[in-house]
Amino acid sequence: MNMSLEAVYHRPGDCWSYGYDDRTIHLRIRTKRGEHLKLEVCYGDKCRPWSDMQTEAMTLLCSDELFDYWQVEVSPPYGRLAYGFLFTDDLEEQIWFTERGFTYKAPTEHLGLFEFPYLHPVDVNKPPAWVKEAVFYQIFPERFANGDVSNDPEMTKKWGDAPEYYNFFGGDLQGVLKRLDYLSELGINAIYFNPLFEAPSNHKYDTKDYYKIDPHFGTTEVLREFVHACHERGIRVILDGVFNHSGVTFPFFQDVVEKGSDSPYFDWFHITEWPLQVVDGIPTYKTFAFEKTMPKLNTANPEVIEYFTKLGRYWIEETDVDGWRLDVANECDHAFWREFRKSVKAVKPDAYILGEVWHDGKEWLRGDQFDAVMNYPLAAAMLDFFVFGHDDAHSFAAKVGRYLARYPKQVNEASFNHLDTHDTVRLLTLCEGDKRKMKLAAVFQFAFIGAPSIYYGDEVGLAGQFDPDNRRCMVWDPAEQDRELFAFYQKLIQLRRVHPAMTAGDFRVICADQGSSLISFERKLGDDTLWVVMNAGENTISIDTFMPSGEWQEAFSNEMLYISDNEYHDELGPYEYRIWGKSNSST
Amino acid sequence: MNMSLEAVYHRPGDCWSYGYDDRTIHLRIRTKRGEHLKLEVCYGDKCRPWSDMQTEAMTLLCSDELFDYWQVEVSPPYGRLAYGFLFTDDLEEQIWFTERGFTYKAPTEHLGLFEFPYLHPVDVNKPPAWVKEAVFYQIFPERFANGDVSNDPEMTKKWGDAPEYYNFFGGDLQGVLKRLDYLSELGINAIYFNPLFEAPSNHKYDTKDYYKIDPHFGTTEVLREFVHACHERGIRVILDGVFNHSGVTFPFFQDVVEKGSDSPYFDWFHITEWPLQVVDGIPTYKTFAFEKTMPKLNTANPEVIEYFTKLGRYWIEETDVDGWRLDVANECDHAFWREFRKSVKAVKPDAYILGEVWHDGKEWLRGDQFDAVMNYPLAAAMLDFFVFGHDDAHSFAAKVGRYLARYPKQVNEASFNHLDTHDTVRLLTLCEGDKRKMKLAAVFQFAFIGAPSIYYGDEVGLAGQFDPDNRRCMVWDPAEQDRELFAFYQKLIQLRRVHPAMTAGDFRVICADQGSSLISFERKLGDDTLWVVMNAGENTISIDTFMPSGEWQEAFSNEMLYISDNEYHDELGPYEYRIWGKSNSST
Repeated sequence: MNMSLEAVYHRPGDCWSYGYDDRTIHLRIRTKRGEHLKLEVCYGDKCRPWSDMQTEAMTLLCSDELFDYWQVEVSPPYGRLAYGFLFTDDLEEQIWFTERGFTYKAPTEHLGLFEFPYLHPVDVNKPPAWVKEAVFYQIFPERFANGDVSNDPEMTKKWGDAPEYYNFFGGDLQGVLKRLDYLSELGINAIYFNPLFEAPSNHKYDTKDYYKIDPHFGTTEVLREFVHACHERGIRVILDGVFNHSGVTFPFFQDVVEKGSDSPYFDWFHITEWPLQVVDGIPTYKTFAFEKTMPKLNTANPEVIEYFTKLGRYWIEETDVDGWRLDVANECDHAFWREFRKSVKAVKPDAYILGEVWHDGKEWLRGDQFDAVMNYPLAAAMLDFFVFGHDDAHSFAAKVGRYLARYPKQVNEASFNHLDTHDTVRLLTLCEGDKRKMKLAAVFQFAFIGAPSIYYGDEVGLAGQFDPDNRRCMVWDPAEQDRELFAFYQKLIQLRRVHPAMTAGDFRVICADQGSSLISFERKLGDDTLWVVMNAGENTISIDTFMPSGEWQEAFSNEMLYISDNEYHDELGPYEYRIWGKSNSST
Repeated sequence: MNMSLEAVYHRPGDCWSYGYDDRTIHLRIRTKRGEHLKLEVCYGDKCRPWSDMQTEAMTLLCSDELFDYWQVEVSPPYGRLAYGFLFTDDLEEQIWFTERGFTYKAPTEHLGLFEFPYLHPVDVNKPPAWVKEAVFYQIFPERFANGDVSNDPEMTKKWGDAPEYYNFFGGDLQGVLKRLDYLSELGINAIYFNPLFEAPSNHKYDTKDYYKIDPHFGTTEVLREFVHACHERGIRVILDGVFNHSGVTFPFFQDVVEKGSDSPYFDWFHITEWPLQVVDGIPTYKTFAFEKTMPKLNTANPEVIEYFTKLGRYWIEETDVDGWRLDVANECDHAFWREFRKSVKAVKPDAYILGEVWHDGKEWLRGDQFDAVMNYPLAAAMLDFFVFGHDDAHSFAAKVGRYLARYPKQVNEASFNHLDTHDTVRLLTLCEGDKRKMKLAAVFQFAFIGAPSIYYGDEVGLAGQFDPDNRRCMVWDPAEQDRELFAFYQKLIQLRRVHPAMTAGDFRVICADQGSSLISFERKLGDDTLWVVMNAGENTISIDTFMPSGEWQEAFSNEMLYISDNEYHDELGPYEYRIWGKSNSST
């Protein structure tokens, strides 16, 4: 065989075989990149006669540096699926791949094939449908808007002063409420709030009371009113759940500090040694990192599980919020998240459960824990290509292909795709103020699979280095806002609203050569097609490539383009982009 | 690099990174077979300075047809683990492999490495410790022994007559109870019972009443007494749980038959069309296979979940049984099994939960569902090599390596390793009566990692084709029993008892050449070493291989062997074997 057998990978489960919905199974397999193969899957019900087996061609889903990934969609009528793969190389030689390995002999019985034993709707990861159509706006509540000066912390600084680790500016929920017109004007339809619960810090990741909105932010009643107002506008709201650790001021931890092992809450934490102290920088109790103000919660303790599963429901029931972003999610145990999910989905089946996982998130994405994870790997790839110029188009496309291949389709579609957050340097600062780079990254972010998220203020040119500088006060003086940038984001958001291809379409790389800064790709769903061309480099690039014939319109300039003979000729200046839409569906 | 990059695979989770116990993580990676590589892992806590990173060499765990599998064991002091792999080829060139892919540049920060974010004891799959020391004996209750003629079914046939699909012989629990001396004499320490609950068939896989011992087998009281008697002898007992489907006579299904959608149990099943009927061989309700007498249970229905999770506890609480073998386990949903596990482990933490999965079982073996699965793939491999002669030693060793690599170590150790069951042709019949082959297969079964299981009667020469012939009555007349075979099994069992290397030792293939029928391997734990040499062929083989110097004793013949200069010279006749033990630990 003219192929690399050792490059082939398929093992049932995760991204390789999964229920996409209640009736559909996706099968994937990988082969060495660029081998001229034809792939087919032979499949059927193991309890039907062998003669009922069917064959279906697989299509190339995407590629990364080393591999091609193939996919096929099948719907087993009786829920059971047995299947094997057939490879045909460019010399028309064939080899089979089944659970038993490679064989030149065609299988003649179901036993020995791979199995998807039974498609159970309850096991399918089904992120809420609204997420793939969401554009998130991340709000760090202390710094977005001060709507009620009566609840300001002592020593509140003047709005717009330099942020420091420990200072306060009076931002609150009333402030956000008063600015809803602004958010509606921008067009976003989902808000992700950094923590709102009572805590001593300005970031509130050191919770004191999980059942109380921080008094400087408002009350339960205000949050309820706020969520209601958002829902009236079609905006969803998700909260930040910090359950890996509490703050030191959390009364149950204070009880342990006071009473030691006599405290009924002693087992709510991980006390490794008594007394509680910090020795050579390492606390004698487990913490987030080695941060003594953030004692790690013992999420294996049934009382802790009950406390937080109830909490997950409580805020939904009390205020109708639409989900949870879960802090340091990968350091809590899986059993805990399973209970949390059940509790939340029981009261709001379309609540979004989003984990903060900076790495490969597959362990949490099997339908029993999270709907999706924050897409830090994609953010890094977008920055490397569009902003830092570390990668060429080939490498960037390879990374994108790798990330697409590693999760089920519905997980990618519900992914939380940010370019910056409260934990990173701000996008404009990463771009060293070069808005062309910023826009290029944002165009890709919005044109790609998954829900984009804007970190508050990015849309009006807010800059900022690492914490605390990335948490500056929102700029409200229109004269200080970059309105041109605002209009750009407005347009991107609007595009995502009108083009189903941008939210649910297939993604296909058209052009991404080695050494080149030009990437072009297609998003396509039914009649709706987008053809995106981007130059991530400092030099003008001439384009002579394939493009489907027909009438196209550019989304930003409204320029028309008539393609005949599938030939596209163009020239893209430094950091320029075009978003071509088939004119019958363009805006 | 002088290595195949595309052959490398490591993705956190499953067999690639897992908690082995509460403090220990195993990391594995695969490379192309036979490349002369040195592998190291660089690891540490992501919250400690980079300079704290440590490096550890990986060791070759096993190999299959295409790949070498490497493992290293690490214990992260703070639970968190970041790691990357370093490959050095035979030209001393080096390349790194991290979550970001391959790079020649050594990593200098934790971000981008692979992560085992936190080792949580609650997420670790910890099969009961007793399982790896267990030797199971599988009993088909209707055919083992008739201890109480008063409960015999009508039309009970004469003991020893030919079994048919629908006939009965009067076997019961009292019968097994009366034969416990026999089982103790044989030496087994665990019993796996085929279903005991009330059902019309002789196999009882079509349950009528899950809460009642079949009246022809006995009562709850008898089972309680039986389990107590077993425990007195150090014998554990596991039951067969048939929860994928009930029998048609199950009253809740009968209620549906009667009342249709008015039945409160309508949603306990999967009714696809009304009325209930069979059209072209396919019932209008989902079933096991297309078997109309076995309606599939809707295990996503909370009432069904409650019913069976309670049942799982009930029989443990009532009779003190030690676990469950779960029928057609891979066709029930995962969410159901998670609840089942929690329920069972809550009342008996060391209950054994064993799934019937004929294929790759990894989806059930993450610590949230089963402890282990029935090892059908290993059974097939053992038969192919020792019995059918389909494979050479190389292919056999490759399969064994593949199966070892694909599960965590503790899962392999708790594996249920059978050669035949009530669902297969009997071993002696597969061997066409050739006891030499049978013994060879059994020697490997007992000398390998995992708990061996004997299908009742195999030990005295019971033969049988497929169902119903594989369910013949047990032979009790000593004159008709093959006592030589019995003594052989006695010896194997005794060996497993006295050699810790057989239950908990490492497994290493010494010799398994292409075209050869000779396999030799080592089991080793501390001072205890076994050196097993087996000839699965019809020709005598001369042996000239490495063997550690010292004094060895053969387990069956007690023959002594003095090895000097690490050279082993021997001759093995057709289907001969030697089990050499280091004499200080041999029996």
